[in-house]
Amino acid sequence: MKLSPATPMHDDTPSLAPLVSMLAADMDRVNATILARMDSKIALIPQLAGHLIAAGGKRMRPMMTVAGAMLGSRDAAAREPAVKLATAVEFIHSATLLHDDVIDESALRRGRDTANALWGNDASVLVGDFLFARAFELMVEAGDLTVLGRLASAAARITEGEIRQMAITGQPDTPPEDYYDVIEGKTAVLFSAAAAAGIEITGASTARIEAMRVYGMKLGMAFQIMDDALDYTASADDMGKNAGDDFADQKITLPTILAWQDGDADERSFWQRTLGDAEFADGDLAMAQGILARHDAVGRAISIARGLADEAAAALDPFMDDGATAPLAAALADAARFAAARSS
Amino acid sequence: MKLSPATPMHDDTPSLAPLVSMLAADMDRVNATILARMDSKIALIPQLAGHLIAAGGKRMRPMMTVAGAMLGSRDAAAREPAVKLATAVEFIHSATLLHDDVIDESALRRGRDTANALWGNDASVLVGDFLFARAFELMVEAGDLTVLGRLASAAARITEGEIRQMAITGQPDTPPEDYYDVIEGKTAVLFSAAAAAGIEITGASTARIEAMRVYGMKLGMAFQIMDDALDYTASADDMGKNAGDDFADQKITLPTILAWQDGDADERSFWQRTLGDAEFADGDLAMAQGILARHDAVGRAISIARGLADEAAAALDPFMDDGATAPLAAALADAARFAAARSS
Repeated sequence: MKLSPATPMHDDTPSLAPLVSMLAADMDRVNATILARMDSKIALIPQLAGHLIAAGGKRMRPMMTVAGAMLGSRDAAAREPAVKLATAVEFIHSATLLHDDVIDESALRRGRDTANALWGNDASVLVGDFLFARAFELMVEAGDLTVLGRLASAAARITEGEIRQMAITGQPDTPPEDYYDVIEGKTAVLFSAAAAAGIEITGASTARIEAMRVYGMKLGMAFQIMDDALDYTASADDMGKNAGDDFADQKITLPTILAWQDGDADERSFWQRTLGDAEFADGDLAMAQGILARHDAVGRAISIARGLADEAAAALDPFMDDGATAPLAAALADAARFAAARSS
Repeated sequence: MKLSPATPMHDDTPSLAPLVSMLAADMDRVNATILARMDSKIALIPQLAGHLIAAGGKRMRPMMTVAGAMLGSRDAAAREPAVKLATAVEFIHSATLLHDDVIDESALRRGRDTANALWGNDASVLVGDFLFARAFELMVEAGDLTVLGRLASAAARITEGEIRQMAITGQPDTPPEDYYDVIEGKTAVLFSAAAAAGIEITGASTARIEAMRVYGMKLGMAFQIMDDALDYTASADDMGKNAGDDFADQKITLPTILAWQDGDADERSFWQRTLGDAEFADGDLAMAQGILARHDAVGRAISIARGLADEAAAALDPFMDDGATAPLAAALADAARFAAARSS
């Protein structure tokens, strides 16, 4: 008799493909709007913004908005305001990336030179500001003040999350709650507001808006935890950025927090010398990875991300009973699990 | 017989005092709202924002909004949305100052250390982003999408103006038109949108909104030209910043443009070596001031600013015939002339 492995929680490897396929037509409209609206008579703006935005990424955030709108309305014309909102969401995200790269002095993102490395910090700060302002112009065109307020509040909370992240940088004894607070602000709030705004602008019920808000929040948390976990495992080829960046930047993330909690005095001294005091020596990254492995800290962080992805999927229940929305909701649930299953 | 001097264009020295006095009650509400809304559970935000905003300045931009609202409505309660808009205008302005100081690597503003010198560039970038987002939250609360769109467009044009300014930096042969385009974007557009938004939100007629839009634009142009002219005359004590900053930063402003236009080959070589190639030697600032004096370039720039201030005042004609608005309009006209008469 052949022993079967423990039953996995989900039989199939989760995939983003069904969602991408269902959203393709609307995402084409979003991509066209992105190109049209990053334009300016100031040539540097489309050049620099185009460098970042053409580099791609999965466009997860605008997909949240488009998916929300499709759950709310089957009429493509009625979803035009949501296309504008989705573009605004991508611009807000792009603006934060440009400013983050200035702050982190990053030279590489998604496997390419960063905009600040190519055009200088000044240009990155200003083009980020431009994209942020343009995002609000698009939201005005979408024509719903309540939705605009939701996204404006998200934008404020993103910066609060990033400032909070600065405050815990170099503090290896940061409690998990503070880390969760940081990533909720810097990452999950935008996923959440993007998803809720998409369905809200179609005039959906409060319960359905709330379902998408929770879905986006849980997905965003899972997404960021995975990003942070993979920073200690991936190579530069996989990640499109340098492995161990967070370690070198003294960023405190869930794996190091879990390892600190379980660490002995020697290990805590190591974290304090490196993450705390930035006194790095050759071999420290490998040493850090060894300590993380000893406590299964990366694996446990990924488990937490998977739990959050399951909670995200569960939040979609209100859409599962309805034949018109069930297929898209299932694809969204799959996308959440994908976000917590990716290896890069 | 005693010779009288040539008749001055305005008999009295223009003053900001009448306007300040008429707006005092509403500006108190604006100042209270500024303090309340720069708050955050992230302590660094009110600390850093407070450092900048407490340093003062004349609050000219929010005064535009409050004045516009008072021209539109005599009911203080009805002007509450304008108080929020005025606060948003000050936050947008503060955000651009924080980012400008990062870009210029300034160490001194209004006679005090800059926020970036005290807290670092990272914090200045992020708190700027926070104030920008908070500005949009306030505009949402003000409740008028058209007005919000006006200010969002202004925010986008500010960054376009600043990027355009980067592009002409180090180009001493910049034509005046390009300079006017830069300062319209980086300075005048916010004055203009602030003034128009204030009256627009009270439900005023298109003609009156347009009058305030033109007033703000002309005033803003005059204001920036004066700033640029005084950079070559004032001492650090007067300006609260270092005299000659623009020269050292290779910024191309109206005085140097006028001097370039009238310059001989030797003078143009000097401008090219300094402003163009940043090859500075001891005594260069004094040399620059000497060349500017030879061509009366600072004096002519100030004359242009005064002409614009007069045009700003003339734009207020629609309010001069109305007994209810004439006194405030007269004070606004005086404020415009003050902006072009100040010696610091």
